[in-house]
Amino acid sequence: MGSSSDVKKVVLAYSGGLDTSVILRWLQQHYGCEVVTFTADLGQGEELEPARRKAEQFGVKEIFVEDLREEFVKDYVFPMFRANTLYEGQYLLGTSIARPLISKRQIEIAEAVGADAVAHGATGKGNDQVRFELSYYALKPDVKVIAPWREWDLTSRTKLLDFAEKNQIPVTKDKRGEAPFSVDANLLHSSSEGKILEDPAIAPDEIVFQRTISPEAAPDKATEITIDFKHGDPVALNGEELSPATLLTRLNALGRDNGIGRLDIVENRFVGMKSRGIYETPGGTILLHAHRSMETITLDREAGHLKDSIMPRYAELIYNGLWFSPERHMLQALIDSSQNSVTGRVRMKLYKGNVVCVGRESPNSLYDARVVTFEDDEGAYNQVDAQGFIRLNALRLRLGANIGRRGGST
Amino acid sequence: MGSSSDVKKVVLAYSGGLDTSVILRWLQQHYGCEVVTFTADLGQGEELEPARRKAEQFGVKEIFVEDLREEFVKDYVFPMFRANTLYEGQYLLGTSIARPLISKRQIEIAEAVGADAVAHGATGKGNDQVRFELSYYALKPDVKVIAPWREWDLTSRTKLLDFAEKNQIPVTKDKRGEAPFSVDANLLHSSSEGKILEDPAIAPDEIVFQRTISPEAAPDKATEITIDFKHGDPVALNGEELSPATLLTRLNALGRDNGIGRLDIVENRFVGMKSRGIYETPGGTILLHAHRSMETITLDREAGHLKDSIMPRYAELIYNGLWFSPERHMLQALIDSSQNSVTGRVRMKLYKGNVVCVGRESPNSLYDARVVTFEDDEGAYNQVDAQGFIRLNALRLRLGANIGRRGGST
Amino acid sequence: MGSSSDVKKVVLAYSGGLDTSVILRWLQQHYGCEVVTFTADLGQGEELEPARRKAEQFGVKEIFVEDLREEFVKDYVFPMFRANTLYEGQYLLGTSIARPLISKRQIEIAEAVGADAVAHGATGKGNDQVRFELSYYALKPDVKVIAPWREWDLTSRTKLLDFAEKNQIPVTKDKRGEAPFSVDANLLHSSSEGKILEDPAIAPDEIVFQRTISPEAAPDKATEITIDFKHGDPVALNGEELSPATLLTRLNALGRDNGIGRLDIVENRFVGMKSRGIYETPGGTILLHAHRSMETITLDREAGHLKDSIMPRYAELIYNGLWFSPERHMLQALIDSSQNSVTGRVRMKLYKGNVVCVGRESPNSLYDARVVTFEDDEGAYNQVDAQGFIRLNALRLRLGANIGRRGGST
Amino acid sequence: MGSSSDVKKVVLAYSGGLDTSVILRWLQQHYGCEVVTFTADLGQGEELEPARRKAEQFGVKEIFVEDLREEFVKDYVFPMFRANTLYEGQYLLGTSIARPLISKRQIEIAEAVGADAVAHGATGKGNDQVRFELSYYALKPDVKVIAPWREWDLTSRTKLLDFAEKNQIPVTKDKRGEAPFSVDANLLHSSSEGKILEDPAIAPDEIVFQRTISPEAAPDKATEITIDFKHGDPVALNGEELSPATLLTRLNALGRDNGIGRLDIVENRFVGMKSRGIYETPGGTILLHAHRSMETITLDREAGHLKDSIMPRYAELIYNGLWFSPERHMLQALIDSSQNSVTGRVRMKLYKGNVVCVGRESPNSLYDARVVTFEDDEGAYNQVDAQGFIRLNALRLRLGANIGRRGGST
Repeated sequence: MGSSSDVKKVVLAYSGGLDTSVILRWLQQHYGCEVVTFTADLGQGEELEPARRKAEQFGVKEIFVEDLREEFVKDYVFPMFRANTLYEGQYLLGTSIARPLISKRQIEIAEAVGADAVAHGATGKGNDQVRFELSYYALKPDVKVIAPWREWDLTSRTKLLDFAEKNQIPVTKDKRGEAPFSVDANLLHSSSEGKILEDPAIAPDEIVFQRTISPEAAPDKATEITIDFKHGDPVALNGEELSPATLLTRLNALGRDNGIGRLDIVENRFVGMKSRGIYETPGGTILLHAHRSMETITLDREAGHLKDSIMPRYAELIYNGLWFSPERHMLQALIDSSQNSVTGRVRMKLYKGNVVCVGRESPNSLYDARVVTFEDDEGAYNQVDAQGFIRLNALRLRLGANIGRRGGST
Repeated sequence: MGSSSDVKKVVLAYSGGLDTSVILRWLQQHYGCEVVTFTADLGQGEELEPARRKAEQFGVKEIFVEDLREEFVKDYVFPMFRANTLYEGQYLLGTSIARPLISKRQIEIAEAVGADAVAHGATGKGNDQVRFELSYYALKPDVKVIAPWREWDLTSRTKLLDFAEKNQIPVTKDKRGEAPFSVDANLLHSSSEGKILEDPAIAPDEIVFQRTISPEAAPDKATEITIDFKHGDPVALNGEELSPATLLTRLNALGRDNGIGRLDIVENRFVGMKSRGIYETPGGTILLHAHRSMETITLDREAGHLKDSIMPRYAELIYNGLWFSPERHMLQALIDSSQNSVTGRVRMKLYKGNVVCVGRESPNSLYDARVVTFEDDEGAYNQVDAQGFIRLNALRLRLGANIGRRGGST
Repeated sequence: MGSSSDVKKVVLAYSGGLDTSVILRWLQQHYGCEVVTFTADLGQGEELEPARRKAEQFGVKEIFVEDLREEFVKDYVFPMFRANTLYEGQYLLGTSIARPLISKRQIEIAEAVGADAVAHGATGKGNDQVRFELSYYALKPDVKVIAPWREWDLTSRTKLLDFAEKNQIPVTKDKRGEAPFSVDANLLHSSSEGKILEDPAIAPDEIVFQRTISPEAAPDKATEITIDFKHGDPVALNGEELSPATLLTRLNALGRDNGIGRLDIVENRFVGMKSRGIYETPGGTILLHAHRSMETITLDREAGHLKDSIMPRYAELIYNGLWFSPERHMLQALIDSSQNSVTGRVRMKLYKGNVVCVGRESPNSLYDARVVTFEDDEGAYNQVDAQGFIRLNALRLRLGANIGRRGGST
Repeated sequence: MGSSSDVKKVVLAYSGGLDTSVILRWLQQHYGCEVVTFTADLGQGEELEPARRKAEQFGVKEIFVEDLREEFVKDYVFPMFRANTLYEGQYLLGTSIARPLISKRQIEIAEAVGADAVAHGATGKGNDQVRFELSYYALKPDVKVIAPWREWDLTSRTKLLDFAEKNQIPVTKDKRGEAPFSVDANLLHSSSEGKILEDPAIAPDEIVFQRTISPEAAPDKATEITIDFKHGDPVALNGEELSPATLLTRLNALGRDNGIGRLDIVENRFVGMKSRGIYETPGGTILLHAHRSMETITLDREAGHLKDSIMPRYAELIYNGLWFSPERHMLQALIDSSQNSVTGRVRMKLYKGNVVCVGRESPNSLYDARVVTFEDDEGAYNQVDAQGFIRLNALRLRLGANIGRRGGST
């Protein structure tokens, strides 16, 4: 499967920031190869044109700048939310879910421009390197992968800044000093980690939060919204049909204003250590609750339980960078095949960090008041059936108790 | 396994309320058998002595009144919380977890007094009949089970009140009319369902809530607490060691005052239909978040993931009434074997419905700042290792892509 | 959902044998309703025309006789075999998989002829009643279901024969006495159970076996065959393309002649007790091994492991009669999405009860001799990668051991 | 966690063969460190004393030679068999299960003699390196691990032999040429792989098999044996109580003589590629069938299904070398907690490759002929119960069909 030396042309995931600019120059010098830059808008909230201009200044000839927000939400975020996905019971996978799309476009560009290599700016301790590279290899098995942070000798901030200076890479004032923590962002979430956040015994300072106000700062009055779902995906907000990215953008604003979606956790990385992260997923948090609420009346019991039972594995796959894997496709087939009926409207109340369902309705509702009612059900349910149901469910337990294993003792 | 006719002596789960008083009298009349009453304090917040007096008035000779709160929390609630148990992603199983203990004591009493039957006041549409009866049968396979609601002809409120009047069963004024919804309560939670709550499109009125104030009504200032865990169970609050029931009682007060633990859901019953419930689990909701937070630094990744993957099944078992089953014992063995290291302290912030971990520490912490740090780790982690890790994890994906299954397509 | 009294027209699953003939007459008398018969060829090896004639003699006006063998194998047997399905590790589900198709046709006929009820001849202790009726209800929720064995008073063989005699139902001589055991058969398998087979400490007599010779009686020389698969299903035997039912019929002959596919087990019924069965699945046993062997070179590791992990649940569903359920459809979607690449040829050796794969090849083979070879691999695999792979996989274990949990102790 | 340079004393897993002798000498030369040898009898069928003498000739001062057969079978093989463990549906994990014990003793010896490093002779492509090293790290997180095959430059057979010659390492004649395949063996199994076995389209030659005769060569007459189990482990053969290793040794002889336990598979390695192996597990194959047969009458249905559902994961863990991990301990706790009742006797028939259960009995039998019987059961089972059981199990399906999802369509 070839060595990674001898690179001719490399497609770099390029943000335009200091670090990837250093990488750009370093690739040109160290590998002596042509660098193609790829800058994507996934909703991180930064201008893209400066990245194009910088790339031009570095002499890059092939520059790709793309708005991928709709594709990101439609083909990655929404499919993931169909499973009510949470990693380790809490994390909405905001960073994890963005990597496959970036990788896929990088590989597509590499094939379009005839590049033999790809490069990313993720460090050697994190999950992102894994997510990028597993995607690369899954899509183009013979690709050469360059991970500068694992290779170069710019192992301290000082060395990096020295390199930048020597290479006419502009360093803005605020980059001179160390950033107090590291940030990643896209339309689904922003994450903050490292440095001042490394002690999990200490709560993060308010300054860490970027896209939500605190519950305390949120309005004293609740906001109620409706979300319409069609086949498992949200399609309208307060009755207004919206494109995927637009809808998520609106939900982000609503979440932000109501102090919704903050998470402070210690999680387990695929590469083996625990790390601490501060995540903000305002719109996603609303969506998670809304989707599950929609499912409560539209999904069959065993369909729901089956989804719940495979969800941890599905979340783990995405966290580990295995979006482009046979097992993710298989689980997605299972999940998607359950969503046809997940259509209807939920009403959600947003209030100071809380997201509460206050109403659900659906043309497909499996909730049948006629059957469940405490009132006369006119024969919809025969209570006598319960006796046989219980007695046969109890039979094995009775047989066990008969031979001395009372109470199911083993 | 015998028929249930010909009952000589029956142990009735007796609350002292109207319905179980009618059952008591009906059993005496209809079965012509001796009735033994069993009234337990599981923290439902009602006086028990009135139940004793009423039983005496009905001529009951053997009356059992017991405070089971400590046993309930220690041997049922805490073991369940070790698994971060949620049914259908949301419900903390407050009703489900109380039934096995009541059943177990009923059977123990039946054996002590030589009774051949047991009876309960659960209706024929709900889960509780299943939970009671599966427990009965698992503990005493030859027991006769009487479920009056499935057997008698008192099928309307009017008939029930008629029966009460004819049999000198006092009916308090508020019981004359229909209660607007049905309530169950114990130290872990209270539930409200039925009647005015039967339309899931309509939010519950504030009057429905019994043991929590609303987030809106909660203080504008957050309350911070610490909870200490030892081997997976909470042992101290704000540094003060407390018995299980005392600790949960205190957490309930804290939850109540901060608007924590309300849940409005549509759930799937074991007997086959969907039902809508309003639950309040103030202390339990705090405990759930606290326990998971404690685990984030004390539990190995794969231990945690394994627990998460079996949790839905464990929750389902408890919901379905299978506490006393071999499979519950087996899952409990798995869960418990993970909790030895879950020791330490978490700091939780309570604010208007929110429960947020703001600090965790443990002598067993697996979080190693030395390894994860963005700073120089002095060789604790070798970034070069990541390359081999990624390349071997990618190998199967590359082999797949080599034969045309790019991106893990199946 | 209506009571089952007041039946106007019922579709009976009718074999033409004594028992279902008694049922036919009993339905006419007891329910005073019109009976429509449905007799299907699923490969049970019996003539169908006698059933038609008998039905005519009973005055049945609408008689359905159908050859469902191809549909049975193509749409039920093959999909199930895609999962390498075994119930309780051993049983190939030969009886279970036939019930959904019979039920489906019964319901389709009921709708075509305007019948309001269906009836089957399964007893009240077995799984088949559950399988039939869950399928009926899933396909036509308002159907009335008649299960004569649970309803009538013909509770002994004598009473049944009396009824037959009184109603001019011919009783062949061998039916006079008790059959020594009960048999079910279709193209996939035959089962024998009950009566002389009820003691699991005693091996079945050779006379019990109906479609296999014993391994001892099989030829002393092995037979080698090839089976070709396309997208997970077998399509050719020894290079000859065959329809599903024809292929399975041929495999049955090969299995029979080589003493393959006998099973003597104690299994757990859905209705709660253990039962003992003697099964013969000659062709299916060959197919099971062949399919798994085909997968070994065409299926990605994690795809295969995922399938294996959900297989027990899938098998349980089919055993329990839940073929027509959302969860079965979901699992099938997962399974089917993995089979696209399962194409190629396996060579199987059949010898006195043994089925052994002696060769597999596929255009989609993921087996790469270049990578795995003990010889020089020309750089296809870099052994140095293994160090990083191991070290990162070990990291969490080392962190655990560092704080005293050596050897992963919990 | 330290680098692995600067080794003072290393404990080598030493077989006495050519390869580990070369490693021994290479360690002395290359690392300039003291080498301690550890040679274990796990039933591989080789004399151990020659290894001691050779080690002495190399100047080794601390030589450990140990018979670990009883510990191996009792604490590793039997616990694994309690789960009816099969990797990828077929492989009995004969090699995998031996590695943890060797590793554990190596680490214990390292601690006893004050060694800072351990070394093994596994290659860089296989699973064994992973199994050894994960065990090492889990038991002694700061240990230095030397894997010569990944480090040295003896990358061809010629170079290895040259090194041997230059270092007075005796090379027996048969080692001069290339062995036609590679072998591993212990009391549970032997494996053969590589070189002439690398084409999975070609069946292995008879010469490959080492501890079984072919089914064709086995006696024409079946052998019947009984195996007694106590709490899940076999304790007696044909009524004779035997120690674990003795019992397995006897079963091996019985399996060998009856052509039992051969397996020819393509499997998925943890390191990412597929490999082909020929395994012989004669006694283990008998034991697997015997244990499952014993469970069929002694294990509750849901206990058995739960075990089956987690088995693939348990098998994967062992295959991947994670015996010493929290998750393996947790799963073992679950498995072991089910085995208390698995006590009794099974009668197995061995015939030309077939292992068939022909009888099972147990004081704990859950099989109740009274309940299951086709004859009059005297009220042990009430067939009417089945109606309620079915109707409630069908309820959700009917509700689904009511809104158009017939047949459970999703």
